[in-house]
Amino acid sequence: MVQFVRVGYQPLKEFCQAVFEKHGLSPHDAEISTDVLLAADLRGIPSHGIARMQRYVNGLKSGLMRPNAEIETVMESATSLVLDAHGAMGAPVSVRAMNAVIDKARTSGAAFACVRDSNHFGIAGYYAIMAMRQDMIGLTMTNTALLGVPTFARKALFGTNPIAFAAPAEKEKGFVLDMATTVVTRGKIEVYSRLGKELPEGWAVDKTGRSAKDPTSLLEDMVNRAGGGILPLGGLGEMFGGHKGYGLAIMVDILCAVLCGAPFGAAIADMPTTSGRVSHFFGAMRIDAFRDPAEFKRDMDRLLYSLRTAEPAEGQERVYYAGLKEWEKEEINRQAGLPMVMQTYNQLDTIGREVGLHVPPVIGTGEGELPE
Amino acid sequence: MVQFVRVGYQPLKEFCQAVFEKHGLSPHDAEISTDVLLAADLRGIPSHGIARMQRYVNGLKSGLMRPNAEIETVMESATSLVLDAHGAMGAPVSVRAMNAVIDKARTSGAAFACVRDSNHFGIAGYYAIMAMRQDMIGLTMTNTALLGVPTFARKALFGTNPIAFAAPAEKEKGFVLDMATTVVTRGKIEVYSRLGKELPEGWAVDKTGRSAKDPTSLLEDMVNRAGGGILPLGGLGEMFGGHKGYGLAIMVDILCAVLCGAPFGAAIADMPTTSGRVSHFFGAMRIDAFRDPAEFKRDMDRLLYSLRTAEPAEGQERVYYAGLKEWEKEEINRQAGLPMVMQTYNQLDTIGREVGLHVPPVIGTGEGELPE
Repeated sequence: MVQFVRVGYQPLKEFCQAVFEKHGLSPHDAEISTDVLLAADLRGIPSHGIARMQRYVNGLKSGLMRPNAEIETVMESATSLVLDAHGAMGAPVSVRAMNAVIDKARTSGAAFACVRDSNHFGIAGYYAIMAMRQDMIGLTMTNTALLGVPTFARKALFGTNPIAFAAPAEKEKGFVLDMATTVVTRGKIEVYSRLGKELPEGWAVDKTGRSAKDPTSLLEDMVNRAGGGILPLGGLGEMFGGHKGYGLAIMVDILCAVLCGAPFGAAIADMPTTSGRVSHFFGAMRIDAFRDPAEFKRDMDRLLYSLRTAEPAEGQERVYYAGLKEWEKEEINRQAGLPMVMQTYNQLDTIGREVGLHVPPVIGTGEGELPE
Repeated sequence: MVQFVRVGYQPLKEFCQAVFEKHGLSPHDAEISTDVLLAADLRGIPSHGIARMQRYVNGLKSGLMRPNAEIETVMESATSLVLDAHGAMGAPVSVRAMNAVIDKARTSGAAFACVRDSNHFGIAGYYAIMAMRQDMIGLTMTNTALLGVPTFARKALFGTNPIAFAAPAEKEKGFVLDMATTVVTRGKIEVYSRLGKELPEGWAVDKTGRSAKDPTSLLEDMVNRAGGGILPLGGLGEMFGGHKGYGLAIMVDILCAVLCGAPFGAAIADMPTTSGRVSHFFGAMRIDAFRDPAEFKRDMDRLLYSLRTAEPAEGQERVYYAGLKEWEKEEINRQAGLPMVMQTYNQLDTIGREVGLHVPPVIGTGEGELPE
């Protein structure tokens, strides 16, 4: 349980946009970067939201994120696109790539894009949802900084490498899966370190490749590249399917990076104060190339309804489907304001002062689970 | 550790083909069905190989598998295809669908197919590898009989719903991920039941939705639809990412079934002696729509080499990449003969006698791990 404050969505949006513009982004790019960033806070994924603002500002100041980078089209066909972002902000080039993919899919039925030499693009689900809103199936992946250890190994060789997949429904909220292919992300390890808690077996291995218990020494070893790291989805060894999560993480690296000649695996690392350059993959598939979208969405309703009304296990209150919790949080947060820990609010205050802007006022406080 | 016998690949192939032909398959369909079935044994996945022959024969005898079904093209475009198998054998219609997808991708860059009202199609990886051999990225999914329990629920609402993904390399064996989206499959639970072993926490839940310990009562409850079942990849609850595996399983049902109007979730169940009708999804993406395939494969070599030569964890001997174990087993089994437990061999003997055929001789014996 943590204390948090709430800041109104609209004022925070204006503040963010202004900060981005002060740091050299065009109004258009500032707006998109803000929209993607705050979508994470709205949907209850604060690790990818406004808490990242400091790292974004650091990236812009250091030149790792280049607001005026010229996006280069490396390869293009009716169903494919490769963009080189040359270090541009992640969100605007990703929106551009996904819009191109949607346009191509409208003509061709399906299309895919790789974006290389890009930066942190926020939540993967944002782009998959763009396709979903056009009666398409949407797919997004990105590789990320080194963090995950292959099954039976002791050193990190891939990132959290998330996959997002979205498919529309009619009455139900859409199905939006947005998942790291590692068991947890670094933030979870940091929380356990702050709380002085022992890590559960199946989250991470230490530098010998055995189950890691101490989160603090693990984080040190990871920073120093001494070994150790987070386990793929499925955990330690093969007993619970760790080799499957490992395979999914490598699949993401293949589609994001190998497919367009970008760095992968150990070649990607975060800087001390900002994120490293990464590559993304986007896809869209028109539903009406297979079936009447209205019928598809009616069946999606049946499927999603059957899941969310399934009888809960003893001790549980509800069964969800992918994306449902996030849609519900979005409704709350849009009204009540975006929740953030005080540390994030104070950072925003400092970020604002540096460029002559005022952070918007706190409109509420609360206490509860605010995922890292 | 189990005792097993080995039977020569070529004689077993001829036997299988002859059995299928005796049960009404055309020589062409018998050859494909055999090739897919034995590919599983070659690659060390005996659960999907010749051990299934009895269930296939039962399916053909009962009319659930229809050797003369007319395959119907329901929908078709330059990048999409929907086939209704009308109960045909799974392998031949799947090979046909994947070949169509590869042809379409050759022209359009990428293409996808759904096959509905089909039967068990063997290992998903077989079809993804077909695309890989054409310098394409291959994707295969299938839904399967009811078995998996959503996170926080107590009754099964999806199958093992596997995903296969294949990408070619030059010197390295290709990357072939072929994974159930559940932690384990029913076979593992059956093995624990035979051995009288307690199930590890994170594999399954009982009919109350709590961690299942007793494999025998779990299997009974599953057969009687009393509740309980296998957990999605990531295990129990959300602590280890069970909601992610759950999301992947539903994604598979959406692409295989909802996208083409086929039954999904609880509507799919195995019969006592054979498998229920299922739906599949196939995809192929031409690598040269993104990048020179030779360069792609060189980078794949770098990636896969870095993985298999990674320093192993203490107590481990090797690090693998997806598909590597299977390629190595294929080399051994092609020479030494296909391994099978004596029970399977005796079944083949009976199956052969019924149609006037002789099961091929045992050419070797061994002892070791033969996955279920």
